[in-house]
Amino acid sequence: MSRNHRKRRFQRPAPGTAPGTLAVPEGSQQPKITLIGYDPTNLEEYSAENVDQLKPLLQKWPTVWINVDGLGSTDVISALGKMFGLHLLALEDVTHLGQRPKAEQYENNVFITTQMIHARAEGLETEQISIFIGKNFVLTFQERAGDCFDPVRKRLKAAGVPRQHFMHSDYLAYTLLDAIIDEYFPILEMFGDRLDLIEDQVVSHPERSVIGDTHQVKRELQQMRRNLWPMREMISNFSSTSFVDEKNRPYLRDCSDHVIQALDMLETFRERASGLVDIYLSSISAHMNEIMKVLTIIATIFMPLSFIASLYGMNFDTTSPWNMPELHWRYGYLYSLGLMALSIIAMLIYFRRKGWLGVVRQPEDKTDR
Amino acid sequence: MSRNHRKRRFQRPAPGTAPGTLAVPEGSQQPKITLIGYDPTNLEEYSAENVDQLKPLLQKWPTVWINVDGLGSTDVISALGKMFGLHLLALEDVTHLGQRPKAEQYENNVFITTQMIHARAEGLETEQISIFIGKNFVLTFQERAGDCFDPVRKRLKAAGVPRQHFMHSDYLAYTLLDAIIDEYFPILEMFGDRLDLIEDQVVSHPERSVIGDTHQVKRELQQMRRNLWPMREMISNFSSTSFVDEKNRPYLRDCSDHVIQALDMLETFRERASGLVDIYLSSISAHMNEIMKVLTIIATIFMPLSFIASLYGMNFDTTSPWNMPELHWRYGYLYSLGLMALSIIAMLIYFRRKGWLGVVRQPEDKTDR
Amino acid sequence: MSRNHRKRRFQRPAPGTAPGTLAVPEGSQQPKITLIGYDPTNLEEYSAENVDQLKPLLQKWPTVWINVDGLGSTDVISALGKMFGLHLLALEDVTHLGQRPKAEQYENNVFITTQMIHARAEGLETEQISIFIGKNFVLTFQERAGDCFDPVRKRLKAAGVPRQHFMHSDYLAYTLLDAIIDEYFPILEMFGDRLDLIEDQVVSHPERSVIGDTHQVKRELQQMRRNLWPMREMISNFSSTSFVDEKNRPYLRDCSDHVIQALDMLETFRERASGLVDIYLSSISAHMNEIMKVLTIIATIFMPLSFIASLYGMNFDTTSPWNMPELHWRYGYLYSLGLMALSIIAMLIYFRRKGWLGVVRQPEDKTDR
Amino acid sequence: MSRNHRKRRFQRPAPGTAPGTLAVPEGSQQPKITLIGYDPTNLEEYSAENVDQLKPLLQKWPTVWINVDGLGSTDVISALGKMFGLHLLALEDVTHLGQRPKAEQYENNVFITTQMIHARAEGLETEQISIFIGKNFVLTFQERAGDCFDPVRKRLKAAGVPRQHFMHSDYLAYTLLDAIIDEYFPILEMFGDRLDLIEDQVVSHPERSVIGDTHQVKRELQQMRRNLWPMREMISNFSSTSFVDEKNRPYLRDCSDHVIQALDMLETFRERASGLVDIYLSSISAHMNEIMKVLTIIATIFMPLSFIASLYGMNFDTTSPWNMPELHWRYGYLYSLGLMALSIIAMLIYFRRKGWLGVVRQPEDKTDR
Amino acid sequence: MSRNHRKRRFQRPAPGTAPGTLAVPEGSQQPKITLIGYDPTNLEEYSAENVDQLKPLLQKWPTVWINVDGLGSTDVISALGKMFGLHLLALEDVTHLGQRPKAEQYENNVFITTQMIHARAEGLETEQISIFIGKNFVLTFQERAGDCFDPVRKRLKAAGVPRQHFMHSDYLAYTLLDAIIDEYFPILEMFGDRLDLIEDQVVSHPERSVIGDTHQVKRELQQMRRNLWPMREMISNFSSTSFVDEKNRPYLRDCSDHVIQALDMLETFRERASGLVDIYLSSISAHMNEIMKVLTIIATIFMPLSFIASLYGMNFDTTSPWNMPELHWRYGYLYSLGLMALSIIAMLIYFRRKGWLGVVRQPEDKTDR
Repeated sequence: MSRNHRKRRFQRPAPGTAPGTLAVPEGSQQPKITLIGYDPTNLEEYSAENVDQLKPLLQKWPTVWINVDGLGSTDVISALGKMFGLHLLALEDVTHLGQRPKAEQYENNVFITTQMIHARAEGLETEQISIFIGKNFVLTFQERAGDCFDPVRKRLKAAGVPRQHFMHSDYLAYTLLDAIIDEYFPILEMFGDRLDLIEDQVVSHPERSVIGDTHQVKRELQQMRRNLWPMREMISNFSSTSFVDEKNRPYLRDCSDHVIQALDMLETFRERASGLVDIYLSSISAHMNEIMKVLTIIATIFMPLSFIASLYGMNFDTTSPWNMPELHWRYGYLYSLGLMALSIIAMLIYFRRKGWLGVVRQPEDKTDR
Repeated sequence: MSRNHRKRRFQRPAPGTAPGTLAVPEGSQQPKITLIGYDPTNLEEYSAENVDQLKPLLQKWPTVWINVDGLGSTDVISALGKMFGLHLLALEDVTHLGQRPKAEQYENNVFITTQMIHARAEGLETEQISIFIGKNFVLTFQERAGDCFDPVRKRLKAAGVPRQHFMHSDYLAYTLLDAIIDEYFPILEMFGDRLDLIEDQVVSHPERSVIGDTHQVKRELQQMRRNLWPMREMISNFSSTSFVDEKNRPYLRDCSDHVIQALDMLETFRERASGLVDIYLSSISAHMNEIMKVLTIIATIFMPLSFIASLYGMNFDTTSPWNMPELHWRYGYLYSLGLMALSIIAMLIYFRRKGWLGVVRQPEDKTDR
Repeated sequence: MSRNHRKRRFQRPAPGTAPGTLAVPEGSQQPKITLIGYDPTNLEEYSAENVDQLKPLLQKWPTVWINVDGLGSTDVISALGKMFGLHLLALEDVTHLGQRPKAEQYENNVFITTQMIHARAEGLETEQISIFIGKNFVLTFQERAGDCFDPVRKRLKAAGVPRQHFMHSDYLAYTLLDAIIDEYFPILEMFGDRLDLIEDQVVSHPERSVIGDTHQVKRELQQMRRNLWPMREMISNFSSTSFVDEKNRPYLRDCSDHVIQALDMLETFRERASGLVDIYLSSISAHMNEIMKVLTIIATIFMPLSFIASLYGMNFDTTSPWNMPELHWRYGYLYSLGLMALSIIAMLIYFRRKGWLGVVRQPEDKTDR
Repeated sequence: MSRNHRKRRFQRPAPGTAPGTLAVPEGSQQPKITLIGYDPTNLEEYSAENVDQLKPLLQKWPTVWINVDGLGSTDVISALGKMFGLHLLALEDVTHLGQRPKAEQYENNVFITTQMIHARAEGLETEQISIFIGKNFVLTFQERAGDCFDPVRKRLKAAGVPRQHFMHSDYLAYTLLDAIIDEYFPILEMFGDRLDLIEDQVVSHPERSVIGDTHQVKRELQQMRRNLWPMREMISNFSSTSFVDEKNRPYLRDCSDHVIQALDMLETFRERASGLVDIYLSSISAHMNEIMKVLTIIATIFMPLSFIASLYGMNFDTTSPWNMPELHWRYGYLYSLGLMALSIIAMLIYFRRKGWLGVVRQPEDKTDR
Repeated sequence: MSRNHRKRRFQRPAPGTAPGTLAVPEGSQQPKITLIGYDPTNLEEYSAENVDQLKPLLQKWPTVWINVDGLGSTDVISALGKMFGLHLLALEDVTHLGQRPKAEQYENNVFITTQMIHARAEGLETEQISIFIGKNFVLTFQERAGDCFDPVRKRLKAAGVPRQHFMHSDYLAYTLLDAIIDEYFPILEMFGDRLDLIEDQVVSHPERSVIGDTHQVKRELQQMRRNLWPMREMISNFSSTSFVDEKNRPYLRDCSDHVIQALDMLETFRERASGLVDIYLSSISAHMNEIMKVLTIIATIFMPLSFIASLYGMNFDTTSPWNMPELHWRYGYLYSLGLMALSIIAMLIYFRRKGWLGVVRQPEDKTDR
């Protein structure tokens, strides 16, 4: 998710604004109203230009689903609010983006607000959806056109027994919620793949980018968690309202199970991400150890050698028999080379006893497993 | 927040002081009393010199809001306490700064104490506000003049239907609480910006100041959390008192949702701040690794070279054919340079196999993403 | 557990699929139906080719256990669903792998889904099992042939008093759950052994692979925890349904105790695994310290020596009495060697005072304890 | 708190001792009994030599406060126990130091045990106080003479309306508890100052002592938390007994608020202390980085220089034209110096491109903020 | 605790074993049965060879305590089970070691299983004890002979009023539980001493063994916590059964307080142990810093010196006036020594400005405080 997008999510009115004040969120699209009316045998889809066109349709169909794409007009929203008797506070929440998912029961409807998630090419995109459920209508507000409800529309259009279910508005609301939650799963699996990738990288060649990537993953998981966590309560609150039929409760319980399953996956991924930082840091440390060993071995071998060579480079006046008689020995050079060889051997024995020589190369073989 | 200011917040009386003892907080301003009286059609604003002037106004107006700026006089506070029948313990809490937000029901009023937050040029400023809500009055005590209630006053002055709401003192109290909570959001967003800044810095050029800054952010977030966390319970306690009308409860529920949302943001920021320390430490480690690599490569290349040069600087008596015959070779010098070149090539091959040469520069390219 | 296997566990239908849609999980086996019918005195085992063959057997035996190995045919599953009046949502969960363990009461049966664990040569294997408990039948669906129920079958076949217990389907269900949970214990003990092994290794010769191994152990423990944790609630929910006889509740309570005991062990192992990372990191640090000490001692001893040797290798014109008169001293060479010896002694005294010389070897003796 | 003192706090009888066994805590003072008897108009203070002297006073005064300083005589304690009908288990707790704060209701009294804290010159001192509250008496046992109740005694002696409150023993008990809790606040502020000090030090010149100091602070905070945490429950339990008058409950609620506030401060300090370890470790790392940079820069500059100098110190026989012709060049020396200058310049450019030269000094300027 | 012992604790039957199957734990002793029968005035102790000998004694004494040391015979256990009407599941738990402490009410007895702890020379030893409490008997099963109940036996034998208490079997059970819990305290204090020791060591001379020791302490604390934690629930469950007399409940409440106190101590020790790892790691880091400083100072001082010496060891043909004229200067040698002295002074000034010279020794003085 791009930084700009993330910031926009917490959009709040100026402090002290009167409750129930509607405000067009920045960069909103003009609302596009569609209505699907149906009875057990028939179904028709309409596209309304203004709110007044909806009235006759409401009377014609026993159950309707009105969908509004785009929050760009407060007139449309308050007109719909008046038509369906919606509470001002609920309408205010529709236009304030970044709501925490919740379900609230009002006198003649239930208000649900939640966050959809879409995987776009440029990253994750969160979209707020508000759902009003009345006895014979479902009214949804989305930020933009394009949603995850096409399979729901298809099932709705399929006549016969399945349509019977949809005659109760709560079942329609359930299918919408189910579609919203189901969209989280492929995205969660995407995170699993990303973590696999980082994990492979951290083991084979740990680079600094690993930490940044892991931090990014953790942030996005944290954001998804903020969306998913309150959904459990949202569904349980919705389920306990009088607008939900007893025989539809198992469906909502199933829906709630899905949320818990998604949170389970999330938690696993968060633990894995945290573990990655440990692995990275220990890889870095092990790497540093290896570098230091090479340096120490080289320095420890060559410093005595260089010293011996320097020693016999001294210019003492060799007319005195006490001054560097080695220089005049027949095999003085070989003797000095022998000294050096001895020093190397002594060092190698020391290193082998410390177990340093073997370990230098071992770790790389190990990590291939 | 400056260190001095922070300390002052926990201002407590000497141990063993009798309960209900009023004490002027250090450096308090003289109280300035203003009263707004209103009925559905009229509204008037008064500035009172002393408490006695308030009496006739209380009888004149069905609902009044008395605001006291400055806690510098225990006389004024206890006079108001007597006039409205306030409990001594509640009055004591008014004059003891650094209260934890809470709502307490007394016989004929509700006492709420909470903390306002203001973004001043020199940092965050916390100000304690105490609110007494009776059947037909709201009485507020603030530490200083200047508050976030101007939008509330404006809405109060707007005649007509909105005024109707305000005829119940609980609605007025709600709008005050709402204004207090809403002031937290721009400040929270400020923290988001600060974290973005530190995050950018930690990735591009990690410096030691990052840790201090992050620590500072965490401390201020922790302080805000201490203010916000008990507000949920405060609102829920207030909401369940008999002074709140059933139809105003949705407003307080909305208010509580805002607190939860603010706490959600806070939690996200705290997690991000914690992650920053990890990133910083791993950046430092990676940086160290890079430095050590440079040192090791340089030492490993030049130590053998220096040794070879020292070797042929030895002064063995070359009259013996066994002593450094290389010195007399026609191409002895070239031979020694060749030895050195070989040594360099061997080292470079070793480093390349370790993957050290490529990685030295790679991390900097990576972090630009 | 192989990576491929792990991923497959979260198998979900495409978002928006109608609830109750059955889908054959990838790579499922064709279902193999077996039926065990019994009364207090007789027991017979059948292998059915299709669902219709089961009908007469259901009427013949007072209690039956039908087991289906393989989820490869939706026809079989939905036929069984119709025969026993199973809810569509429960059937859907049978075919969706990776379910969180749960127990749900429907009108005329209880639905339990949980995860079995098998220790295979190539790693851990999780297998989903779904259990339907009705008044006089138990119906189980497993992913594959091969299970941990052979001891249950044996006890079932043992005539006499033990058979009496099994006449209630809830007791049969309890023994199945008990067998499933008991299979977790040997696997948990395996983890204890693995941790012992890593612990030994981290103390004797800490290698980078330790972190990877520990991470792997933590991940697998986390996965087992995800399976075990919800089992407590599952058993308690099952126990409180009307399908469980009062006098069988102690058995389920015992079963729940086993789950808690397994979780206890798990938690201990997780703590131990976390502690291992600390030990590894501190081992690495201690090791690094040791390496650096060797380097520093070597460098600190040889650098002054080399300097002295270089000093007397200078070519100043010794015709001037001020230029390196030492070179002409009779014992100049011995004098220079004496200088070097002095420098070595000074350094050794310094190191001893720092306590470095002794500590270099000490840690290895210590860790043998 | 000194180590010796700390250990003594958990003083328990030998395992298997009969319940209700009184044992004189090691090093206890002989008990000193004082009694304050009062009615609304009169108050008198007595110092009793033995328990029998108290009897007539109990009948003379409607309300009495008996205070015992020193637990050195089991006779006195059991005599008082018999006189007031105290439960043996409660008396046992009086003599066993290191009790967890708690309130327990017995048939005709409430037993409260809690820990006072005193700031002494040599460190913190914890003292156990046991309080028995009956209908018309308060009986307190302290470890030693000297307490924080002088302000309570003063208020008690002030005649008039305040005395009315004290006629109920529960109000006297409340003022004692309030005085005990209020003594925690100045000590908590002391911790804030200590943390400020360590924080300043860790930023300006991080030394190893910082970790020890922080560990010490955390331990003492943890100990205070162990005392404070159960006080909430203690007060709430006391408040719900029949010995507390309905109209005194707000006072205890206020008392409980103070405990919560103290715990809030404690929690903040604990978070700050934890953060300090992070800052210290990152300071150390940053410092190490700086040292390594200096070493690397020096080594990287001088190693090539030394090599060049060694190179031209070789003794090849220059009669061959191929052997070190540079030695005979007219400007050979300048040429070699030029080579060295080039090498230095190349290294400096490399370091500047890495950004190492500037950063060496930067951190120290930064940390002054 | 030795590794072998630890593993044995989780002893479970093979998966799928029938519930209520008794299995002799590996290496069990043959059961030794003792019976103490008593009435208010008399008490007698018997040692039974087989279960049948107990029958007449049960009828002779109003209250009996039967103790079985050793679980080596399933016959004895099931015979006792039949005699007292014990549930098969409870008997199964008696023979399965490593039980989580719990109390379960059956029809005519309460079953308690818990873990005793003994400090043996070779480490901690855990022993499982199972207690059955009926109306007029207490039946205990221990793993081995030797227990912590001798003080209980002594008090039991003391005739008079104390014996009255024991006429109710619940009071006898309470004293047993109390003795078991009291045995934890001296062992907890032992841990405090061990932590003090490690703490002293980590500050004075941090060695790698510290981490291993701390890990060991944490593991053993974790194990004790696993035993203690469920005891609270165990006591509360036991206390709420019908087998506990109302007037004995305060005793069990006291017992529960002791468990909480032990858990409090445990938690403190765990926090201290965690803090030790931090101290150790920062000590290591500080130590490394010191080593690196020594290396850097030595290298930085000697590298320029060696370079200057090498420089004047070059063999340029000094017949050219441009080639190393310094060699022919009268004071050339002194000049070169002067150069070296200048370089040393410059470096010392640099180090002093960095504050490195002073700090090298400082930390050791600091840690003595």
